[in-house]
Amino acid sequence: MLGEMLENVRKSCPLIHNITNYVTVNDCANILLACGASPIMADDVDEAEEISTLCAGTNINIGTLNQRTIPAMLKAGKQAAALGHPVVLDPVGAGASRLRTATAFRLLEEVDFSVIRGNVSEIKTLANGQGTTKGVDADVADKVTEENLPEAVAFVKAFARRTGAVIAMSGAIDIVADGERAYCIYNGHPMMGSITGTGCQLSALTAAYVAANPAHRLEAAAAAVCAMGVCGEIAHGRLSPMDGNASYRNYIIDAIYHLDGETLERRARYKIL
Amino acid sequence: MLGEMLENVRKSCPLIHNITNYVTVNDCANILLACGASPIMADDVDEAEEISTLCAGTNINIGTLNQRTIPAMLKAGKQAAALGHPVVLDPVGAGASRLRTATAFRLLEEVDFSVIRGNVSEIKTLANGQGTTKGVDADVADKVTEENLPEAVAFVKAFARRTGAVIAMSGAIDIVADGERAYCIYNGHPMMGSITGTGCQLSALTAAYVAANPAHRLEAAAAAVCAMGVCGEIAHGRLSPMDGNASYRNYIIDAIYHLDGETLERRARYKIL
Amino acid sequence: MLGEMLENVRKSCPLIHNITNYVTVNDCANILLACGASPIMADDVDEAEEISTLCAGTNINIGTLNQRTIPAMLKAGKQAAALGHPVVLDPVGAGASRLRTATAFRLLEEVDFSVIRGNVSEIKTLANGQGTTKGVDADVADKVTEENLPEAVAFVKAFARRTGAVIAMSGAIDIVADGERAYCIYNGHPMMGSITGTGCQLSALTAAYVAANPAHRLEAAAAAVCAMGVCGEIAHGRLSPMDGNASYRNYIIDAIYHLDGETLERRARYKIL
Repeated sequence: MLGEMLENVRKSCPLIHNITNYVTVNDCANILLACGASPIMADDVDEAEEISTLCAGTNINIGTLNQRTIPAMLKAGKQAAALGHPVVLDPVGAGASRLRTATAFRLLEEVDFSVIRGNVSEIKTLANGQGTTKGVDADVADKVTEENLPEAVAFVKAFARRTGAVIAMSGAIDIVADGERAYCIYNGHPMMGSITGTGCQLSALTAAYVAANPAHRLEAAAAAVCAMGVCGEIAHGRLSPMDGNASYRNYIIDAIYHLDGETLERRARYKIL
Repeated sequence: MLGEMLENVRKSCPLIHNITNYVTVNDCANILLACGASPIMADDVDEAEEISTLCAGTNINIGTLNQRTIPAMLKAGKQAAALGHPVVLDPVGAGASRLRTATAFRLLEEVDFSVIRGNVSEIKTLANGQGTTKGVDADVADKVTEENLPEAVAFVKAFARRTGAVIAMSGAIDIVADGERAYCIYNGHPMMGSITGTGCQLSALTAAYVAANPAHRLEAAAAAVCAMGVCGEIAHGRLSPMDGNASYRNYIIDAIYHLDGETLERRARYKIL
Repeated sequence: MLGEMLENVRKSCPLIHNITNYVTVNDCANILLACGASPIMADDVDEAEEISTLCAGTNINIGTLNQRTIPAMLKAGKQAAALGHPVVLDPVGAGASRLRTATAFRLLEEVDFSVIRGNVSEIKTLANGQGTTKGVDADVADKVTEENLPEAVAFVKAFARRTGAVIAMSGAIDIVADGERAYCIYNGHPMMGSITGTGCQLSALTAAYVAANPAHRLEAAAAAVCAMGVCGEIAHGRLSPMDGNASYRNYIIDAIYHLDGETLERRARYKIL
């Protein structure tokens, strides 16, 4: 099933509209090309809707949000969702500033996202709301371990139910869930944290996978998360003693370029809860 | 002749002003350094003219155009042209949104470009105009092949005559033409399409080549297109089985760094029509 | 001592706020991760102060300054300085346009910088002031050599005294000085000049080193400059015949990833004047 998700990206070559940060945008474009999709970046409010209209999916990443691009994010997201095109939100740094948190909430209110992908801290910020007393949601630990996995899964499913989106929460164990089922994913390598933008790249990849598999949002998002993790492992196996995070970055994108459905099926390590 | 164009870049080290997109800007800067030129990026309207004044050439790329940078593009382009410095236009995505198409036309109207470099679809959009009935120009096919080459060449020459610019139309066969002569170039590798920004890099490279050879715009632009294609071939020959598009990107820039006039002369494959 | 500066970065993992240019921002983020720090990029005026508040250091680089980001630079810099957090200025292109020069001066006036890092031309522009008659400061040559080193050191020390900042002036011999002492550093490789953004990366690295060693600004900045130079040498030793500036870029960041205090101590070449 996960392999099929990947193969459908290579077959349909979806064009993905990215309003994303300028730190990791080049890697996002190259990973989209590596997986068989095509990127377009357009963040002016005057063309955001048009570009989302002609694309198969839209990826909104608030990593370097600003007053000029926030209106474009809202317009692109609303237009894509109105057309039934999948929209992914990457709430980079939600919780780190009022602007980021408020913008993420505004996007959640106004745009019907297909997938929300972030780290534990970002997802917790969005799930727990502004100014709400800390309820059960707040009890999820910052680090997902085998011990607290059931609670973390319940937390992610609850947020998925509330938003109607698939939630992809990245961590030591990645959790990708809709309201009913959760993929708990064990792929990846800790050294991925020493590269800027593996999360941003994963969000772009997720947009491509979901755009190519609109009837299977959960499986498509899980496949993207597994693909990134598997490629983090493949790329790590390729490191020579002098290679560091810069070469590792290239090798991960290279691995996505070569990844096929059969390898993804074989190397994906997950359980469904 | 093409080799001389390259050597003149290494001799004169032209400083190139780039108002370009934030997706591929780093690769544009590194390819300019690789070929022996120097990059400067400055997109604020308050310094655009001054920076173009002190540079030998200006490269305008609308890949992530916005309301803030469009006025800077116009000012920089007009100032450079007024001083007789070559200006290159890369109309990224012209035809994909009204903003891109309208901006490209406004730039064409107000700036006297030395070279316009784009893919077939972008060049067709510019050549056929907005709201015009489709005339003979529109008959050029989206894919240039040996069969339709004469028509494509006629189309490119006609657009060159109309604009007074050298036109560099990238495709399976690249066509670089002024009103009289066309270089039909067979270098390159299809895998170059799996890297973001090989077109943007080529436009930056073209600006450097034309700035270093102002009396030979056509040959300089053709040399830049051949250089990029030859380096795509050299870099492809260097790929190991695990290398994908990310490593390929680095290898192409590396190849530009090492390319000399003699190799360019020997490996360039073209005919003049 | 220099090795200890490096080890303190790995121990304290400082979060560094960067308002920097979009040309080299990805490399700045990856080099910060490589050295053991964490990057955050945030250039909207509405969050600049908040982000600088939660970071251990702030790095301001005017490489692609614009009307939107200049106010954010001022706010972030003032807030960080008010909290006693180190702030680094990289006055990219000061002297090349009035906007750059005026912005650099305004930043100098309003922000209490811990370190100012630039090339000889940029530092001279800042030291000699706008509209001042050329005094003794102006006599520093554009290229620092063994012959003019005493004058250059005196020039840098004088500017350090005047600003209260540590000055790191990059060149054939790097000079890092406060008002009293100057590290004259002989590490590095000329090929580093063929990569875009080694200076920007060094400024980011310097912010991390100073943030992790607030009581030793001079030694921390000198350690960062030595580290960059040593890694330029290590990476150069790793180049294969087909590698050019793009691979070299990756290898330098890789080398920073692997650099330890012992290697830095052993390979740093400097004298104190």
